[in-house]
Amino acid sequence: MDRDALVARHADLIEKAIAAVETRIAWSPFKDSPSTKIHGPDKPVAGKAAFENQLGKPFDLDQPGVVDRVGAEVSPYTQKPLGITYPRCSPDTVIAAAEDAWPAWREADPELRLALCVEMAERLYDANFEMAQAVMHVAGQSYTQSFSGSGPNALDRGIEALAYAAKAIRDVARTGRYERLFGAERVALDKTYSLVPRGIGLVICCASFPTWNAYPAMFASLATGNPVIVKPHPIAILPMAIVVRECRKVLMDYGFDANLITLAADTLEEPVAQVLVDHPAIQIIDFTGSPRYGGHLERTVTGKLLFTETAGVNTVVVHSVADLEDTARAIARASSLFSAQMCTSPQVIYVAPALTEAFGQALVRQIDAIADDPAQAAGIMGAIQGEVSLKAVADVRRAIEGRDGVQVLREAAPYDHPQFPDARTLTPLVIASKGSAADLYAEEHFGPVLFVVSMDGDEAVKEATTLAKTRGSISSYMYSTDEDFIARSAPLYEMAGANLTINLTGAMWINFAAAYSDYHVTGLNPAGNACLADLAFVASRFRIVQRRRPGA
Amino acid sequence: MDRDALVARHADLIEKAIAAVETRIAWSPFKDSPSTKIHGPDKPVAGKAAFENQLGKPFDLDQPGVVDRVGAEVSPYTQKPLGITYPRCSPDTVIAAAEDAWPAWREADPELRLALCVEMAERLYDANFEMAQAVMHVAGQSYTQSFSGSGPNALDRGIEALAYAAKAIRDVARTGRYERLFGAERVALDKTYSLVPRGIGLVICCASFPTWNAYPAMFASLATGNPVIVKPHPIAILPMAIVVRECRKVLMDYGFDANLITLAADTLEEPVAQVLVDHPAIQIIDFTGSPRYGGHLERTVTGKLLFTETAGVNTVVVHSVADLEDTARAIARASSLFSAQMCTSPQVIYVAPALTEAFGQALVRQIDAIADDPAQAAGIMGAIQGEVSLKAVADVRRAIEGRDGVQVLREAAPYDHPQFPDARTLTPLVIASKGSAADLYAEEHFGPVLFVVSMDGDEAVKEATTLAKTRGSISSYMYSTDEDFIARSAPLYEMAGANLTINLTGAMWINFAAAYSDYHVTGLNPAGNACLADLAFVASRFRIVQRRRPGA
Repeated sequence: MDRDALVARHADLIEKAIAAVETRIAWSPFKDSPSTKIHGPDKPVAGKAAFENQLGKPFDLDQPGVVDRVGAEVSPYTQKPLGITYPRCSPDTVIAAAEDAWPAWREADPELRLALCVEMAERLYDANFEMAQAVMHVAGQSYTQSFSGSGPNALDRGIEALAYAAKAIRDVARTGRYERLFGAERVALDKTYSLVPRGIGLVICCASFPTWNAYPAMFASLATGNPVIVKPHPIAILPMAIVVRECRKVLMDYGFDANLITLAADTLEEPVAQVLVDHPAIQIIDFTGSPRYGGHLERTVTGKLLFTETAGVNTVVVHSVADLEDTARAIARASSLFSAQMCTSPQVIYVAPALTEAFGQALVRQIDAIADDPAQAAGIMGAIQGEVSLKAVADVRRAIEGRDGVQVLREAAPYDHPQFPDARTLTPLVIASKGSAADLYAEEHFGPVLFVVSMDGDEAVKEATTLAKTRGSISSYMYSTDEDFIARSAPLYEMAGANLTINLTGAMWINFAAAYSDYHVTGLNPAGNACLADLAFVASRFRIVQRRRPGA
Repeated sequence: MDRDALVARHADLIEKAIAAVETRIAWSPFKDSPSTKIHGPDKPVAGKAAFENQLGKPFDLDQPGVVDRVGAEVSPYTQKPLGITYPRCSPDTVIAAAEDAWPAWREADPELRLALCVEMAERLYDANFEMAQAVMHVAGQSYTQSFSGSGPNALDRGIEALAYAAKAIRDVARTGRYERLFGAERVALDKTYSLVPRGIGLVICCASFPTWNAYPAMFASLATGNPVIVKPHPIAILPMAIVVRECRKVLMDYGFDANLITLAADTLEEPVAQVLVDHPAIQIIDFTGSPRYGGHLERTVTGKLLFTETAGVNTVVVHSVADLEDTARAIARASSLFSAQMCTSPQVIYVAPALTEAFGQALVRQIDAIADDPAQAAGIMGAIQGEVSLKAVADVRRAIEGRDGVQVLREAAPYDHPQFPDARTLTPLVIASKGSAADLYAEEHFGPVLFVVSMDGDEAVKEATTLAKTRGSISSYMYSTDEDFIARSAPLYEMAGANLTINLTGAMWINFAAAYSDYHVTGLNPAGNACLADLAFVASRFRIVQRRRPGA
């Protein structure tokens, strides 16, 4: 296909994305609703059929070095195995294939690489109804969230990273003319500056929300000229297999070697991540996942670029409210979304003592309003991805038994999913605590657990920001009608590297992070070292090599 | 003094610097000649007097936490101690002082920080005749090189880093307005984005050319809001003490705490670098110096930003020449400059077998032309900084004794310095080798040693680029009249991350790297991981923290 035409076709989108990251407006080239009014009646049906047709079959991915086939995904909605197998490939062979594919990619016009990444994003958008089914049935997200959060919202984060890659790439003059006098002699040099990619990028994906962090990492590395190896979580391979399939198609359509992007499927029993991390050809590592492995990488990886997003303890401080019910609803919705299996889910809610009782009641009322309405619960809470999250909630429930000053406001319980009677579901456990009981809530509990802590506003801010600084925080929330309180509190969040949402209620999820407008992760606390997205996320993925010689 | 006036005064310089890095032209706000025609008759005299007046006295630097005074510098020109002592300060106290000073700096308008760094550069330019004396008498550079290379050329690298800092800082919108429909509800959010500096920057300086790498590191960290601690090499403290003195004055003049920049003087016996590197408050480390300690840092530092420039083995490939004598002269001059104690000095010269004998003779002739003319020798070769470099040359001389296929073309010998009869000098040892004898020349010998290796062009390029990839290279050189040869060779240098100068002869030093136009160090080979200067050098020195709330 015509490469020039592709560059021309996507030029406007890249310009608009650059304008969006520079102005931080709301923008997207995609629609994030699955409505048939937008997409027509056929695409949802075809997407579902594509997914169902894949069940029980080998996933077709023509990669080199296949050793055997692996796959042990279980749908949180049916609790049955998907029965899909993926090629498990020898790391050395996949790396060698990436290196073979590399020269043409390295030497390609960066504008073409950018356009090809946009093309990949558009193909993935086109495959998004299949993707929505895939994400639902490996991660447990609701249908609408799978469609939007793992689709357009994630693709937007990818396009955002592309916009920064374009800025960093275009910032480097490709030629220069240098003229000056040395003594009496006028010296004229012609110089060329080449962008040289750093090396193979390894993208290690999380299980619960794989595409959202993978797209920016993939596109940032690819656009700057690096091959990419995608290492999905063994319990959530399918979405990334679809991604790799579509990206390989685009590469081949435009005459590039498909092995510029490969899938490194593995198993829980025989993980391959560290083998890849340690391989000298891997020069860039983008990791999303547990603080345990992420922390290990942060403490051990040297001589390579490492970008991490792990997790933290997100807090809400309710100092004073204009409308208690609206506030409680906003927090209840955020805490219920994907059953709190998100890196932006609140876990600890500090409430001014005078408000605590009324707030606790309102919060439970609002959670119940979701949990007791099966259609709403299904659309918001979705399913619980793994038994581990059920256990996390049960462990907390057991730990508070008989503890002074601690009270259960709401018990966790499954809800009945209207379409999937066997779905693994759990509505939030809500615990009230008088004063600090930080030993209970200072660790991330990866599941629907909420702590309502009665605490004065200033003390709460101090504790919340200390938690952010020491345990990490990706999203912090505050409600106050007192501008003085907000003004004296906000700098503490800033110092803790905690992005803060103030007084947000209403239709927008308070934990929604919009590409192009919201920065995600500051790099200033243990929740991760990388920001989606900024110049720092892209600027080191390539280097500059120069050549100079006397000119005429 | 008036901060707004300062910002206004330096705005144009910053714009011009940004234009220069974007177009890579020859530009400088400074004059790099010490000529009295430019500077008048008084400044050189005053600078020399300031230096001489400092000899034998405590250097006045009002820093906190002084434990004792240290200083054991010896002039390579007189081989006598300078007798200057510097405060040795408790690392914890200096760090605490930086942290105390930090809030006002962090919160200052970044444009003011940029302007203050320009002001520092201008004050240092103003003190440059004193600096030239200081650099001469600790490092051994010639007077003119001390003035230019350690003065304006180094300040230009600092301003260049400032230009990139300005670009990265200005790239971040400070406010944004986000509006979109969520369902039927129009949500409007006002967002603010704060630049939050990462933490204290530690600048570890090399002994032979301290200011050149220190300025960009200092200015990049300061401009992005980080305090700086300067750790000079114990044998070359004075230049950096002058730098810290001038920068502290500028800070105080404009109402900031001087402890935003401090000097961490130490001794060879009790080095302080690692204590600082390991301190959690130090978040950015800029290192220039030996591959040994640099490599240690590269292998061990995690969770902090680390920028390194160490060293490598720079090569010249002489494949074919338009004018043998011009070529030999260009290489002889580069190899004689500062007696090859530069990170850009060539060490290995591969010459096509047919040319080897004639080239060797011409090279010796050209070196002799410098060495035998005391004024030229003094102006180009300067002095040998330390006994270690005499030993390096003696070791090589001993190692080749009785070795087959190896021949001494020119013996190293002192030259008589016209002003300083006791100067430690040494003209280059030139060794000829038939075919590869890589065990002899593949290690950096930090002193005036040159190897002329008879080797076919393509083979030579292969070996030169392999050396670059495995041992590091900062500057590589090539001479050829064959465009096909150049075309097929250049990509190999690119892949090795080796900046290449082709067919350069004449008045410009072939190893001169011009700020704004020449990138210095690619980060793609063991010579260092940081480039002077690019966006990657600055973009991670600050992070972005956001705040959002519903707007009207």
